[in-house]
Amino acid sequence: MADLIELRDGMRSFTEERDWSRFHDPKSLILALVGEVGELSELFQWLPAETAQELANREPLRPRAEEEISDILLYLIRLADVLDIDLGDAAERKLAASSQKHTPGSQPHKVIPG
Amino acid sequence: MADLIELRDGMRSFTEERDWSRFHDPKSLILALVGEVGELSELFQWLPAETAQELANREPLRPRAEEEISDILLYLIRLADVLDIDLGDAAERKLAASSQKHTPGSQPHKVIPG
Amino acid sequence: MADLIELRDGMRSFTEERDWSRFHDPKSLILALVGEVGELSELFQWLPAETAQELANREPLRPRAEEEISDILLYLIRLADVLDIDLGDAAERKLAASSQKHTPGSQPHKVIPG
Amino acid sequence: MADLIELRDGMRSFTEERDWSRFHDPKSLILALVGEVGELSELFQWLPAETAQELANREPLRPRAEEEISDILLYLIRLADVLDIDLGDAAERKLAASSQKHTPGSQPHKVIPG
Repeated sequence: MADLIELRDGMRSFTEERDWSRFHDPKSLILALVGEVGELSELFQWLPAETAQELANREPLRPRAEEEISDILLYLIRLADVLDIDLGDAAERKLAASSQKHTPGSQPHKVIPG
Repeated sequence: MADLIELRDGMRSFTEERDWSRFHDPKSLILALVGEVGELSELFQWLPAETAQELANREPLRPRAEEEISDILLYLIRLADVLDIDLGDAAERKLAASSQKHTPGSQPHKVIPG
Repeated sequence: MADLIELRDGMRSFTEERDWSRFHDPKSLILALVGEVGELSELFQWLPAETAQELANREPLRPRAEEEISDILLYLIRLADVLDIDLGDAAERKLAASSQKHTPGSQPHKVIPG
Repeated sequence: MADLIELRDGMRSFTEERDWSRFHDPKSLILALVGEVGELSELFQWLPAETAQELANREPLRPRAEEEISDILLYLIRLADVLDIDLGDAAERKLAASSQKHTPGSQPHKVIPG
């Protein structure tokens, strides 16, 4: 499995070789991320909730889901790089903070009681 | 820097210890991802485009940007895991495919000519 | 029920009275829209798909859903105004075009066959 | 200009004639909304912030922007209808509440001081 650093370096080279860093200000990259999140949403929007996982595991959905999730990751890595954020470290810290905040057995944040 | 596999395993443990896998169907996880993308967007929405990168590099924006980008990554990793997708491999393949598709010197996909 | 034109005029006055039009370029308004869509998503993300509609009809969810949906509408109306788009006319034309495109009895666009 | 009520009734008829109400639970409609917001974002993502408004006013961008904004409005109207929310009234109340909350001369909510 490719690492976050390798993917970051790959995106850097990709961007430089095409001289696209002039397009990669934070607000533009966030809009690009939103575009990819929208494409992912479209794949799942009309699937029944209870069979979505299973349907996403086979053709024709699986390769398309892989592509959209990858596009989101690549733009997110690029955004973090532009903002000089060490994404792996930041995510590790955030996960540790969430583990502290949500004690085992608690409800997820933002669950509306039924 | 923590690796994608470590973060995936961390999210798995986090989820299991709280018995939250019952909430983690694909459509719900995508909505959670959208929620985090919304929080990231709110941080940047009213910043001038030309100073956003610089402003995001210092207090009070920087730690908040790190948190929101991390939240997006963690939900994306969780979604990929639920869908049994090897995120690092998929992103590596997608980047290679994009490199083939966009020859150096070309305009980014979806640029509207001015 | 307030009309689209009244809401547009209300948003115009609101913006002018605060001198906020300098913030309302299209990319910033789209990010603001994304922020509100994220807040709406957070309300629904962990609800069971089959009871979400019923849960959204009563406290504590209902007033919050009303607010988030309203925020989305208000930013959308503002964006259309900034782009000099007659939103009601455009939506009427789009609905007519969709009615032509999708014959009664057809599957929704983007449904992945099960 | 078509009114919110006319558009709501148009979406109702459109949905019933195709028997698509079975797809229109709240979470699915929010994902559909996200899909359309993504398409709108893609139109603007790489435009320079300072010329985006002008570029969006002419070909080839203008008709595409009209379509995406309309799609967002139509799904939003449909979602409000499914949740039994009077969208025009709700938005009017929200705008009045925002006018109370943000006194003229104040900074927009969520502006990070530069």
